[in-house]
Amino acid sequence: MDIHELTRELQVKNDSKIVMMVADGLGGLPLQAGGKTELETAATPNLDALAARGVQGASIPVLPGISPGSGPGHLGLFGYDPLKYQIGRGALEATGIGFALQQGDVAIRCNFCTLDADGNISDRRAGRIPTEESAPLAIKLREVSIPGVEIFVEPVKEHRFVVVFRGEGLGGNVKDTDPQATGVPPLDPVAEDEASQKTAEVASQFLAQARGLLADQPKANFHTMRGFAAKPDLPTYEEVYGLRAAAIAVYPMYKGLARLVGMDVVGEATTLEEQIDVLKTHWEDYDFFFIHYKYTDSTGEDGNFDAKVDKTAEFDSALPKVMELEPEVLVVTGDHSTPAYLKSHSWHPVPTLLVSDCCRPDGNTEFSESAAIRGGLGQLEAKYLMTLALANAGRLGKYGA
Amino acid sequence: MDIHELTRELQVKNDSKIVMMVADGLGGLPLQAGGKTELETAATPNLDALAARGVQGASIPVLPGISPGSGPGHLGLFGYDPLKYQIGRGALEATGIGFALQQGDVAIRCNFCTLDADGNISDRRAGRIPTEESAPLAIKLREVSIPGVEIFVEPVKEHRFVVVFRGEGLGGNVKDTDPQATGVPPLDPVAEDEASQKTAEVASQFLAQARGLLADQPKANFHTMRGFAAKPDLPTYEEVYGLRAAAIAVYPMYKGLARLVGMDVVGEATTLEEQIDVLKTHWEDYDFFFIHYKYTDSTGEDGNFDAKVDKTAEFDSALPKVMELEPEVLVVTGDHSTPAYLKSHSWHPVPTLLVSDCCRPDGNTEFSESAAIRGGLGQLEAKYLMTLALANAGRLGKYGA
Repeated sequence: MDIHELTRELQVKNDSKIVMMVADGLGGLPLQAGGKTELETAATPNLDALAARGVQGASIPVLPGISPGSGPGHLGLFGYDPLKYQIGRGALEATGIGFALQQGDVAIRCNFCTLDADGNISDRRAGRIPTEESAPLAIKLREVSIPGVEIFVEPVKEHRFVVVFRGEGLGGNVKDTDPQATGVPPLDPVAEDEASQKTAEVASQFLAQARGLLADQPKANFHTMRGFAAKPDLPTYEEVYGLRAAAIAVYPMYKGLARLVGMDVVGEATTLEEQIDVLKTHWEDYDFFFIHYKYTDSTGEDGNFDAKVDKTAEFDSALPKVMELEPEVLVVTGDHSTPAYLKSHSWHPVPTLLVSDCCRPDGNTEFSESAAIRGGLGQLEAKYLMTLALANAGRLGKYGA
Repeated sequence: MDIHELTRELQVKNDSKIVMMVADGLGGLPLQAGGKTELETAATPNLDALAARGVQGASIPVLPGISPGSGPGHLGLFGYDPLKYQIGRGALEATGIGFALQQGDVAIRCNFCTLDADGNISDRRAGRIPTEESAPLAIKLREVSIPGVEIFVEPVKEHRFVVVFRGEGLGGNVKDTDPQATGVPPLDPVAEDEASQKTAEVASQFLAQARGLLADQPKANFHTMRGFAAKPDLPTYEEVYGLRAAAIAVYPMYKGLARLVGMDVVGEATTLEEQIDVLKTHWEDYDFFFIHYKYTDSTGEDGNFDAKVDKTAEFDSALPKVMELEPEVLVVTGDHSTPAYLKSHSWHPVPTLLVSDCCRPDGNTEFSESAAIRGGLGQLEAKYLMTLALANAGRLGKYGA
């Protein structure tokens, strides 16, 4: 059952505002048994006060034991089944650098590589060429011209760049040209289905022209293509929920993910405080606001428990200004856990708080992992948070008579 | 979504060890309202100490309200959706007596019966003929010979025995020949699909020869065939999880179930203490160990509350020797509940404990039904225990980027 079949049918419009605040990688672990998590250690007076009014739950990003990347983690929060909707590698790379993919685009992750005199790959990453050298080369590849296809080439970092083909009849299923080995030539792009024949031909032409343009480079004299992917076909927030939605994010990846589900990306904020200012500015223009906070994840990835504690407290301090706007529904959650102990995304459920005037408080008086597992929402898959938010906002009618 | 699609893609190899200790029928009920369950009554100092380090949950064997047999109960624990994978009656009977089914085998439950002079069934169970009399008759039926088919006949108990056909092109869908009534003749074996035509013919020939071999018997002068079933097509632990898995069980049924998912059955233990010795002996040879303990179920089936309490304490006493081996992940659970109060398998969630260095302890300090429902794993379907175990062992990569 796709939950959107229900939300399409039952959606109701009103003047309510829903704010979803995502502290990336929010959930954590104690450093030793019997200890506290980052969230439990941090001073979070505002979240704790909201916990007394709200209802908590332990959000399972995908399924028990599955650690998601940012793509599936956010799709779940947005209410899109992360097992049904998958974002191909190329599309995610383009999204991550803020490239606005259009329907029918095919995005490709490319790596500069070094070919020897025989045309065999001697270095799959062109000696990890620094960005200062590789970015101009990526831009040089914009000279490639193929009739009937619009081409975009975007530098990323070191040996990596992104190519996007835009045109009619371009399928996304083409095999990687990286042989995953040195001493052999790159592979030709081969279509994996009929609909991707043209894409494979365009890729062949692109590679032929690139070979010429890069021929005299000492290190990056060619490139491979990997992770061919069409723009994922995601229905929009407007269609599935009837919501005018805005994303207020600092990093390109999260702006990109929000764009994929039809959110407008608003403001130019670089700090959480500025994000809240953007929220105020656009308060009347939208029904739903997605606010993304990165640093609870990046400090966790760094394995820096104390820094994650500090960033959690910083996140908490933004809450009063949000609540001054009196949203009908506030959701505070994360797209996954990033325990400093593991220095990586993890599968652990994410403490999640929903506050509305009709949310049935659960007796918790603090926001934490240990409170969340005793919360009124129980353990729930993240994909159900949006239906709960809509219901609490009075935006879902009755199912059946 | 079949979770194995994810585990196949995300599995990572490392040197970790996972031990799953299954106390069959572990969950129980108090004898009167306000009382304690068998587990809550038993002295379980070792499990209680592990509870403080671990995370508990209430494992739902199949779905709420569904009481499983041993087959679906264990398939769930092994991470195989017990509603998707079904073990036919004949295959389970063969598995239960330790017969190693091969791909393509068809197994059939047979009952000796009594025919009257007109060839009608006068007793469907041949007067519940005792095993001492029936076993030699089953062995006599090994004289049946059918070209192109290998035939196995194995005594079970009283009027019951098992026949297995091995050969090419044998489908498992043939109707029972037991008419479920007396005063009428046995039915002919009728194929239910094209692929099972040959099986029906082989069964007809078997029955014709058996009629001759049994003709002069006073009670068991014929037999019926029921529950025709091909070996279930279960992917192996090696394939779906990348785990070299060993089963350490005392009873044939559990060895058989483990074999069906590709576990090696190791050791010849007859007591739990011996099982732990086998575990030590094979510690370096495998990644995953399934240890089955029967007596929490059999005492429950007997309705003997006090005996189940004692057997639960005995199970607890084995834990220290397991923990001396320092497994990265320990899972303690049951395949279902068997409350002495009900004298049968039941649907009640099973207290389940997972211990690892990154399992996010939930504040519980005892292992029990009442602690489990407040545990950090919440209520979860048993089929997710394996993904959780893999994740805690660092054996699952990230889903999506």
